[in-house]
Amino acid sequence: MTHSERRVGLAAGMAQRRVRLAAELAARDLDALVVTDLINVRYLTGFTGSNAALLVFASTCDPVLVTDSRYRIQALRQAPDLDTVIERAGPRHLVARAVSAGARRIGFESHVVTVDGFEALAAEITGAAEITQAAEITGAAELTGRVGAELVRAPGVVEGLREVKDAGEVAMLSSAAEAADAALTALVAGGGLRPGRTERAVARELESLMFDHGAEARAFDTIVATGANSAVPHHRPTDAVLTRGDFVKIDFGAVVAGYHSDMTRTFVMGVAADWQRDIYGLVAQAQRAGVAALEAGARLSEVDGAARRVIADAGFGENFGHGLGHGVGLQIHEAPGINSATGGTLRAGSVVTVEPGVYLPDRGGVRIEDTLVAGRQGPEQLTRFPKDLAIV
Amino acid sequence: MTHSERRVGLAAGMAQRRVRLAAELAARDLDALVVTDLINVRYLTGFTGSNAALLVFASTCDPVLVTDSRYRIQALRQAPDLDTVIERAGPRHLVARAVSAGARRIGFESHVVTVDGFEALAAEITGAAEITQAAEITGAAELTGRVGAELVRAPGVVEGLREVKDAGEVAMLSSAAEAADAALTALVAGGGLRPGRTERAVARELESLMFDHGAEARAFDTIVATGANSAVPHHRPTDAVLTRGDFVKIDFGAVVAGYHSDMTRTFVMGVAADWQRDIYGLVAQAQRAGVAALEAGARLSEVDGAARRVIADAGFGENFGHGLGHGVGLQIHEAPGINSATGGTLRAGSVVTVEPGVYLPDRGGVRIEDTLVAGRQGPEQLTRFPKDLAIV
Repeated sequence: MTHSERRVGLAAGMAQRRVRLAAELAARDLDALVVTDLINVRYLTGFTGSNAALLVFASTCDPVLVTDSRYRIQALRQAPDLDTVIERAGPRHLVARAVSAGARRIGFESHVVTVDGFEALAAEITGAAEITQAAEITGAAELTGRVGAELVRAPGVVEGLREVKDAGEVAMLSSAAEAADAALTALVAGGGLRPGRTERAVARELESLMFDHGAEARAFDTIVATGANSAVPHHRPTDAVLTRGDFVKIDFGAVVAGYHSDMTRTFVMGVAADWQRDIYGLVAQAQRAGVAALEAGARLSEVDGAARRVIADAGFGENFGHGLGHGVGLQIHEAPGINSATGGTLRAGSVVTVEPGVYLPDRGGVRIEDTLVAGRQGPEQLTRFPKDLAIV
Repeated sequence: MTHSERRVGLAAGMAQRRVRLAAELAARDLDALVVTDLINVRYLTGFTGSNAALLVFASTCDPVLVTDSRYRIQALRQAPDLDTVIERAGPRHLVARAVSAGARRIGFESHVVTVDGFEALAAEITGAAEITQAAEITGAAELTGRVGAELVRAPGVVEGLREVKDAGEVAMLSSAAEAADAALTALVAGGGLRPGRTERAVARELESLMFDHGAEARAFDTIVATGANSAVPHHRPTDAVLTRGDFVKIDFGAVVAGYHSDMTRTFVMGVAADWQRDIYGLVAQAQRAGVAALEAGARLSEVDGAARRVIADAGFGENFGHGLGHGVGLQIHEAPGINSATGGTLRAGSVVTVEPGVYLPDRGGVRIEDTLVAGRQGPEQLTRFPKDLAIV
């Protein structure tokens, strides 16, 4: 598939997503939803401007995108199929549009809208003059105004849809994983991991290689951690120098068309000690167990447990202090979380990381992480870089 | 001043900032403020973790910092003088602490706290069982619960303090401006601006040079815009190639210790046409007028007007569609805005940009931007890169 075919696939996907959202709204007895989270707006429209809101109806009424004048041309280009309004007070304008279209129960993203932002929305329902008395949020989260419409809390509705990726999204996530794989391959092949280099220099070269291989951005601040630093799960690169005998842990990812990949590999410099081989082997075994547990319908806490048990049984449970993984997509961390406390089950089409680690304070640590698609017949690997212990 | 002396200066500054905040709370008749904006927490404590909240009292009660277990060691290192609590439900915990310390009027950042987040805070005041009936936000923005305490909207209180920089902050902002100056100097000296290079390649080299010169991060996505692209105020680098006769507009900045710089320079490749010399001269004249207007006490709309009139009088008013500048600090855009609609006056110690531009669609554009400190005896330049028309 070419890049432009993928983009076409993404655009068609967006109309589909709005249809799924409309069904979700109907199921919640909402007439409309005012989407104010920018990532959610992007997911539903393709529009990437920094000021945007979207009104989606449960009925067949057309959605309305609102942004400001800076983005007039960009909105036409990115979301040509949508009715776009230029108006700075966007969310409030959309509430008014919903009311005038006859919507009674108007959802808003209560996990995103601030208390002050809510007041502006509420003013549209109650009439601004009445705001002092009437703008009331109850536990039932409803606000009914004179116009007969009400604002209803609707947190996480779009995020719920985003948990299952469509084909266009999987294609982009796959491209992002490829860019990261290719960059790390080039780094190693070019001798980029050599004694005497600093963590910082390695991180910068790796990021530069990612851009060479098609990344539009880094998915997050690249982690390069050598020696004892590798025992710090989220170490930031320093001027520490790669030294013979060190673990070098590299956690990084690429962004392609807004979609993030996430991977970690741990190398050994020059010669591996027995303890290093042991914990590397243990983490690799745990990672395989976690990947094997990635079946649609599996309980998320059990996916975590499958990998965690391997590490705990070997006596290193205390040295694996973070969750096993997380969803990735338009954000580097999104639903579902995969840890011991996560409720719910894994859905087919979720794209997640599996990233167990063992960290021995002041000595070193290993983490191995892939990005994968959960499916009914087990997972599909998006990260393909080898996982055998590599001595460089 | 060495880097470590500057850091010491910053730490001492933080205690001072909390004292100023306490006075501000007293003036607003608030007993305490729950600070949940992460940048505001960093400003008041130095703590940079991704989960944090801070309770500050108007009285002499000690402030309380809350974060989660991932950041236990980091909090000790970055904020050793503070009482730090490890607790995931941080803001809610701080409301409880405020109540038990006898606070009656407890401020919260209503421009940051979401509707759902507010419900959690409110539960602490009213008793969770009563939330359905009692959690009420009125226009007066007060919530009074059974415990006799109330949550009071307090948007932008810390941001107001941040508008005036202390000596430690100016030192960091100066370092950030130096890193950007040095990178651009090195880029030009090394022949980085030459025909045949892409915008993207120039942007990457410039960013790499910034890191070489002490930046810890980019202040924002670097803009490199050549030829007609320079007429787009916020163009993103493409594979467009620098060509003899082009304007090349470069807008970028560095981050040092969390503080951002922001600068723009526009070059001409090889040979400058008369129309290019004309609009360059015009923008340079407008920029000087804007800088000259940066006096403490000046009306912000007038600072904008001083530069804008120069451009409008020359008949190019329509080609300068954005504001003249903005504050910079821990964020790349912060108070004060400097545009025709801004109310209020410039305060001594504000660090702001002055960045007029003239953009001729499909031909090219010029912007010249410095970061400066406003003072009682006129501004201090933090950006020092020359502003004469440079033909490279």
